[in-house]
Amino acid sequence: MTIKISIDCMGGDHGPSVTIPAAISFLKQEPQAELILVGREEELRAELKKCHAENNPRLAVKNATEVVAMDDPVEVALRRKKDSSMRVAIELVKEGAAHVCVSAGNTGALMAVSRYVLKTMPGVDRPAICSMLPNEQGKPTYMLDLGANVDCEPHHLHQFAIMGSVLCSAMEGIARPTIGLLNVGHEEIKGNEVVKATAALLRADHERGVLNFHGNVEGNDIFKGTTDVVVCDGFVGNVTLKAVEGVAHFFKSAFRDNLLATLGGLFAYRSLKKLNPKSYNGGSFLGLKGLVIKSHGGADAFSFEWALRRAFDAAHNNVQEQLSRMIAEIMPAAPGAVPAETTGSPIKQS
Amino acid sequence: MTIKISIDCMGGDHGPSVTIPAAISFLKQEPQAELILVGREEELRAELKKCHAENNPRLAVKNATEVVAMDDPVEVALRRKKDSSMRVAIELVKEGAAHVCVSAGNTGALMAVSRYVLKTMPGVDRPAICSMLPNEQGKPTYMLDLGANVDCEPHHLHQFAIMGSVLCSAMEGIARPTIGLLNVGHEEIKGNEVVKATAALLRADHERGVLNFHGNVEGNDIFKGTTDVVVCDGFVGNVTLKAVEGVAHFFKSAFRDNLLATLGGLFAYRSLKKLNPKSYNGGSFLGLKGLVIKSHGGADAFSFEWALRRAFDAAHNNVQEQLSRMIAEIMPAAPGAVPAETTGSPIKQS
Repeated sequence: MTIKISIDCMGGDHGPSVTIPAAISFLKQEPQAELILVGREEELRAELKKCHAENNPRLAVKNATEVVAMDDPVEVALRRKKDSSMRVAIELVKEGAAHVCVSAGNTGALMAVSRYVLKTMPGVDRPAICSMLPNEQGKPTYMLDLGANVDCEPHHLHQFAIMGSVLCSAMEGIARPTIGLLNVGHEEIKGNEVVKATAALLRADHERGVLNFHGNVEGNDIFKGTTDVVVCDGFVGNVTLKAVEGVAHFFKSAFRDNLLATLGGLFAYRSLKKLNPKSYNGGSFLGLKGLVIKSHGGADAFSFEWALRRAFDAAHNNVQEQLSRMIAEIMPAAPGAVPAETTGSPIKQS
Repeated sequence: MTIKISIDCMGGDHGPSVTIPAAISFLKQEPQAELILVGREEELRAELKKCHAENNPRLAVKNATEVVAMDDPVEVALRRKKDSSMRVAIELVKEGAAHVCVSAGNTGALMAVSRYVLKTMPGVDRPAICSMLPNEQGKPTYMLDLGANVDCEPHHLHQFAIMGSVLCSAMEGIARPTIGLLNVGHEEIKGNEVVKATAALLRADHERGVLNFHGNVEGNDIFKGTTDVVVCDGFVGNVTLKAVEGVAHFFKSAFRDNLLATLGGLFAYRSLKKLNPKSYNGGSFLGLKGLVIKSHGGADAFSFEWALRRAFDAAHNNVQEQLSRMIAEIMPAAPGAVPAETTGSPIKQS
């Protein structure tokens, strides 16, 4: 099956000079992909020419006259830049011209425009951002929410758990992924009121056999790989993720300390590569009526290509359909929930 | 000035086999220290004999018949084990026989017993746990709270900021340490309601010249060293700290991958050493009428010795007196606040 990906080529710190080389390289790796490059046509064509890829039949260009800047407030992205590359790329998903959209644009604007254009999936109160992190088991830990929701109620975290479980199941082929609730200790009595109430909801789902709830996990369990999915609110998730990036950066800088350290880093290169945050680029926006993948704003071409890979895999594995089905199944009585068949992705399969 | 440290020798995963060798080694480094070893006398004397240190005049042994286990609930530590090494060690601080107490016992029990025995300092609603973390500037970042308070109001975070600032100032000799509020973004509009209200309190203190509030910081700023102090609630702090420990462990495991990686690790050893979490062992309990330092439960002797170093430095730098003075100065109208001279540490200076 051909997967069509719309790319906000102007987003991120580097724009077309990163997104277009990444797109071209990705097409070489993935024969089933077709890409729609969205942005200022002239700039995109110039970059394509530079890369000798003007005539690739699997690359289309879609003009969009405006650009959402990395520091644009949400309101500007939503109300003033209606012809932005970000918005047009998302609209292609809504219209069914693309299966999934990828952008390295600013997270707040991307989430706001995605919600506005695509709307929230029935049964979901708030979309969440889910990313893969490497763990010591050599497999990914799916963690959410990573910053879309800074104030959460137990039923929000409950929905995040369901969505994370579905994403992990679809992407990794694990029938019943284990779910951990991020907390300050493993014991049931630990944690704040929101986390304790969430644990009760997840235990109930576990008992009726619909979710595989492992229990509380601690910060280090993310990297031990204790569970397949780790659930937390967007404040904790965002701070944790950035702290981890900070430590990784600190480690890397230690290898530039002196010649011996640099040599050491080179020797350990293959082993350290599996921790390379660049290969874990690409957060999924879950809970919208359409798939959107957020790349790190500072991504280079290598890293942006990984975000394209995530997008392809998510669409190829029917994440959207599986989400609708699972949410309708687990939360039949949820406010606004409707039968599964009407909640599918609006994407036309080609 | 001689600094007397009471040590809960039975605490932690390893008990006397770690705490006593660490104590002996620390005494060799620090001629101004005197140590009171608390625990089951027979076991302590046996370990001292093993280390050929039975007759050190700067080492006293204080018998305590009970031990708080690492998994003992708080209630057991508080109500049933009244002659525990943990409690007796803390009581020595209350009585003025020691300037500071060090324990590797379980955090919940240690905080509960510390609060019960020492009581909270006037003007402070809740004690907090503050640790040093390494940063890229080659100096420590003081971060709190790391797990004592999982549900916080703005005035709690405000008090944490004051206490962290005082600790950092006393330990590092920085007149006005910069304070960062941990958040999901640097902008003022970012964050949850508690963080936004806390920022308002800190900005007001900054404007009247009593605190040096930098503004919001993100997770990676902890390791960049953007500010001297980073303030957050105990839920976020605990999860972040453990996640960072998890990543550090993951990195270390990468160096055991194969021979080449191990060699690389050895080459980079000196540079990586500055990131060694063992040398950052020792969290200060701030806001009590007496100093208590918490060592990591799994600490080895090298690491436990660092916790003793923190304890010595905190007492030597009069952290307790400075805390009382600063709290009375900044929060003259705080409920329960009393003039500085009555809030000093009950420790008799020798």
